[in-house]
Amino acid sequence: MTKAKELGVSENVVILDDGGNLKAFGRMDGASIPTIEIAQNKAYTALFGVSTQDFFNFIQGDPSLLAGIPALPRVAAWGGGFPIKVNGEIVGAIGISGAPAVQNDVDCAQAALALLPDAVPAG
Amino acid sequence: MTKAKELGVSENVVILDDGGNLKAFGRMDGASIPTIEIAQNKAYTALFGVSTQDFFNFIQGDPSLLAGIPALPRVAAWGGGFPIKVNGEIVGAIGISGAPAVQNDVDCAQAALALLPDAVPAG
Amino acid sequence: MTKAKELGVSENVVILDDGGNLKAFGRMDGASIPTIEIAQNKAYTALFGVSTQDFFNFIQGDPSLLAGIPALPRVAAWGGGFPIKVNGEIVGAIGISGAPAVQNDVDCAQAALALLPDAVPAG
Amino acid sequence: MTKAKELGVSENVVILDDGGNLKAFGRMDGASIPTIEIAQNKAYTALFGVSTQDFFNFIQGDPSLLAGIPALPRVAAWGGGFPIKVNGEIVGAIGISGAPAVQNDVDCAQAALALLPDAVPAG
Repeated sequence: MTKAKELGVSENVVILDDGGNLKAFGRMDGASIPTIEIAQNKAYTALFGVSTQDFFNFIQGDPSLLAGIPALPRVAAWGGGFPIKVNGEIVGAIGISGAPAVQNDVDCAQAALALLPDAVPAG
Repeated sequence: MTKAKELGVSENVVILDDGGNLKAFGRMDGASIPTIEIAQNKAYTALFGVSTQDFFNFIQGDPSLLAGIPALPRVAAWGGGFPIKVNGEIVGAIGISGAPAVQNDVDCAQAALALLPDAVPAG
Repeated sequence: MTKAKELGVSENVVILDDGGNLKAFGRMDGASIPTIEIAQNKAYTALFGVSTQDFFNFIQGDPSLLAGIPALPRVAAWGGGFPIKVNGEIVGAIGISGAPAVQNDVDCAQAALALLPDAVPAG
Repeated sequence: MTKAKELGVSENVVILDDGGNLKAFGRMDGASIPTIEIAQNKAYTALFGVSTQDFFNFIQGDPSLLAGIPALPRVAAWGGGFPIKVNGEIVGAIGISGAPAVQNDVDCAQAALALLPDAVPAG
């Protein structure tokens, strides 16, 4: 949220545990209502094991995945979701949504991950 | 959460806005998985305008309400949910779940409301 | 399932992980269709931390819990669900449903738990 | 699962009966949480009567099917789901998900079907 304030944007910040259950959530004033769910879905999608933008690049190469994966109820396959890994194992995920530009969400998520000393830097 | 630590219990703490949308959430380590949803439901139920325990007392007197209201998907009509009111108007709600005793949830919710100087004390 | 065969009953056997996600499932021939979901709900309910029959005894004493808890979408608060604990911590849950008598489900769940040397004996 | 171990991947394995109801499920350690649902959806999709990859090829040729079918709640129209047929009749379906490559899921499903002597080889 510090990063979001710096960028002048309003974000929803979601932390899920490794089972996809909500661990922490915060919505900054001004973040739009539909982005509440999107932030949660980005975090859930990151539980596939890669960042949501990398995951989209992966599914984009296969027409059947491209048609089907984004239709799953808890999936949001665009930038702003990252797995949280410790020693190579997924321990949870972060999802950020709310800013006008997806890149803002990505920047805020990476700033949050940088606060976790044991977590692998977001690729 | 400070109150919960004092009581030696683990809680989920939910803040909803006046539209019933998630504003903030935190789960203390040790709070059980099913109580994540219950905390959210208590907060949602408090948007009826009274505390969840008072709301149960109200529906308990009418067999049709008692049969139907607890079956609603986002309702949890037992202690631990309170509306947040400013000048008599509902501006949101708090829901707490996770402790072994409902009274712990109530105590934590009231401790949280006491932190809001403008909010009406929970009746 | 060995215990169920011994008792001459057909069961659904569910193992959930500590996050409430499906880990293993098996349905014996003859187990009825609605009991598939019930077995899953019993396991989920056991994630509250006690056996489903003990959990029902707990909610039975409070009219508001008795009205509301059984209405939750993934709850089944009658015998046949047990948490799986190792060193006092919940690592998952087992749920059994399908037999004509609830006690059969309980007996099969306890027989399954007895196969886990590190798990606390089902109380 | 033997095939998955051989390939060094972690899979969810789902067997549905001819009514689309869960018959058996197993999740190997390391299979990601979102793939639990995908494996079930692949098996459900195979109840259309053909493998999920053949089914995608079929819907791909018709813009209205391509827009609508993948949006159905229990559909996953990409490789890894197969109907189980005996004497030309569908008796159930298998769905596999979890590996990094869809082809791994297909290979594991075909290895599983090969264990069923009466089942038609997956086309």
